[in-house]
Amino acid sequence: MSPLHVSRRGLFGLTGAGVALAGAGAAAGYGLSGDASAAGDGTVAFRGAHQAGIVTPAQDRLHFVALDLTTTDRAAVLDLLARWTAAAERMTAGQETAEGGALPGNRYTAPADTGEALGLAPSSLTLTFGVGPGFFDRLGIADRRPAGLAPLPRFQGDRLDPARGGDLCIQACADDPQVAVHAVRNLVREGFGVTEVRWSQLGFGRTSSTSTGQATPRNLFGFKDGTNNLKAEEPDLLDRHVWVGDEGPEWLRGGSYLVARRIRMHIEVWDRSNLDDQQRTIGRDKGEGAPLTGTAEFDTADLAATDASGPVIGDDAHIRLASEQENGGARILRRSYNFVDGSDGHGHLDAGLFFIAFVRDPQRQYVPMQRRLARSDALSEYLEHNGSALFAVPPGLAEGDDHWGRALLA
Amino acid sequence: MSPLHVSRRGLFGLTGAGVALAGAGAAAGYGLSGDASAAGDGTVAFRGAHQAGIVTPAQDRLHFVALDLTTTDRAAVLDLLARWTAAAERMTAGQETAEGGALPGNRYTAPADTGEALGLAPSSLTLTFGVGPGFFDRLGIADRRPAGLAPLPRFQGDRLDPARGGDLCIQACADDPQVAVHAVRNLVREGFGVTEVRWSQLGFGRTSSTSTGQATPRNLFGFKDGTNNLKAEEPDLLDRHVWVGDEGPEWLRGGSYLVARRIRMHIEVWDRSNLDDQQRTIGRDKGEGAPLTGTAEFDTADLAATDASGPVIGDDAHIRLASEQENGGARILRRSYNFVDGSDGHGHLDAGLFFIAFVRDPQRQYVPMQRRLARSDALSEYLEHNGSALFAVPPGLAEGDDHWGRALLA
Repeated sequence: MSPLHVSRRGLFGLTGAGVALAGAGAAAGYGLSGDASAAGDGTVAFRGAHQAGIVTPAQDRLHFVALDLTTTDRAAVLDLLARWTAAAERMTAGQETAEGGALPGNRYTAPADTGEALGLAPSSLTLTFGVGPGFFDRLGIADRRPAGLAPLPRFQGDRLDPARGGDLCIQACADDPQVAVHAVRNLVREGFGVTEVRWSQLGFGRTSSTSTGQATPRNLFGFKDGTNNLKAEEPDLLDRHVWVGDEGPEWLRGGSYLVARRIRMHIEVWDRSNLDDQQRTIGRDKGEGAPLTGTAEFDTADLAATDASGPVIGDDAHIRLASEQENGGARILRRSYNFVDGSDGHGHLDAGLFFIAFVRDPQRQYVPMQRRLARSDALSEYLEHNGSALFAVPPGLAEGDDHWGRALLA
Repeated sequence: MSPLHVSRRGLFGLTGAGVALAGAGAAAGYGLSGDASAAGDGTVAFRGAHQAGIVTPAQDRLHFVALDLTTTDRAAVLDLLARWTAAAERMTAGQETAEGGALPGNRYTAPADTGEALGLAPSSLTLTFGVGPGFFDRLGIADRRPAGLAPLPRFQGDRLDPARGGDLCIQACADDPQVAVHAVRNLVREGFGVTEVRWSQLGFGRTSSTSTGQATPRNLFGFKDGTNNLKAEEPDLLDRHVWVGDEGPEWLRGGSYLVARRIRMHIEVWDRSNLDDQQRTIGRDKGEGAPLTGTAEFDTADLAATDASGPVIGDDAHIRLASEQENGGARILRRSYNFVDGSDGHGHLDAGLFFIAFVRDPQRQYVPMQRRLARSDALSEYLEHNGSALFAVPPGLAEGDDHWGRALLA
């Protein structure tokens, strides 16, 4: 049995293998532009220059949770973040939250791990941690809140559920949804008395590639999504567009900002539009995903090209308005997921895209881009943004005792 | 390229391969007790003596939808069911809903297929169709409603959302959730003007095995679930407990009944109970899943065994109350899924088990068993049944022009 195929221990007494595995992942991760990236075969290193789950090749399933603090006690929060880190690191290595967690030797003890991931593989689990604007107010450290973390404005057409937002977030991505759900559930449980769930979102299919090794997936409009996304293999572009640099506070350098938007898609309306309309709305063809000025997916879009009826890629085409040319060179790293949350009570599926983007400065990158899209994008007719949240995502953890929030709070 | 590995056509012009594939699946399916079962490697035959998706080895992902009729026009319903069948058969073979569906040659046409499954494998997709009590009232054929389809009673502790139920249901199971979602979405779309969505439920992890070749999965209480489930390899037991026989109307013989219950799990309360409590509540140990009177998962539970403090498997243990011994020999085929539907607005995850069972007679098998469990099961303390629905599931379709609902309505 290869150590990279080992299933979750606990039942099998493979503590040592789990630990060795974490180490192997870290080493492989460091090999790729100093980052915590996929070590292949189901285990992603937890520690590294940046948090895993940002440029890690996007896993297929998401469980995202936003939490609120229920205390103003900074020491209690720091203690929780240390406990979260320990549990998170173990789970990403395919282990229970604690040694003997699911099946304590003393059966008159409540298990420290809830057990539903026993026997499952690590499944490339990543856990990515962030803090929202309220985190700083609640703990009386508003002076430490970075400028980038100003709440997002209300964009044209937004119909926001005020219950979104949140003081903290954890993004769990994995190739097995039960592994992602188990991780979030156990961290939520650990937070009892310090945090409570504000909202949570499952995503079933990635709609972004974050690595050149991944095929571009399709969103629920049936189009390939994220062809021009930033990729793990572009470290210079990541430094420029994703990782916070010297302009940020020390605890955030090497980190990023996470923008989360719940975007309901009016799929019934979209489905009644014809293929030509759909393609002109996006600016790409539906089959290949090629820009309307090209024939292959990765052809560069020629935004200046015209034909007898005007620009080939229209003034209101989605890819024009989201392009770096139209946004002063700004680019973003998308890491979005499709969702269906049952039905809307009016005879339709409640379906859409849970948009996640990582950016170096949301106020300069995301906000102007979304303003432009909300105002002019032909696609807006089919969308309703009903959830919005912004978090600052600290850098990765060094080896040793380093834990989430230490540099910010200690 | 093996024909069983072919990806969805449309982009690749493999119409013929898709058709051949459906045939191969059917042949393999018939080899196993005359049933439409997994042909291995990602394609399940659509036609057969019984509908697929009942004893088919349980796939990992579920999208279940209940719909209401919006018309009383029997011909319109019959026409929809014929169209649904054609689209369903194509999708289970890894094809678009219609020839050239996603990318019509005439781009001024709205695509017949929404496209998000282009390039994805068939993923063992099964589509299982049923009719609820209201179907008969709405179409003025109440005299054809079988006795088994009487609405389920309200059980002790039920807190039912009246929006559940439904005139029709489609259960989509697949190994890729995007394939299941695509299928439901396209059938919903096809139903416009005849049906509308009443509710829909995604499940992310199967909690039942329906074949001896599958390992027993764990539910969100961390326990193996469904060890004693009926299995595809037990045709005599299936005839006795699952398939409707001569006692039913002709259009239902060889079919079954589908009981759907949305069971919220109070995971926070469960997580605070100790391992001993948890194991005594279930009647099994958490690690192996062995009955408390045995050491291995498939050991037969000794319900008569006692020790100094009384019965080893307690009077209120879940496996005792659900056992065939306590239920006059009745057994059921379970095909349930774990779910997390975001949060409950009170600081907790909205998590649980979407229970699906197939039975020959719900009034004699499910109702008395659930009455007993609701009244006495120690597990009830941690559960809240908040959704309930019952459907009659016709038998499988013969080769040729046979379609869903033909025998019932034509």
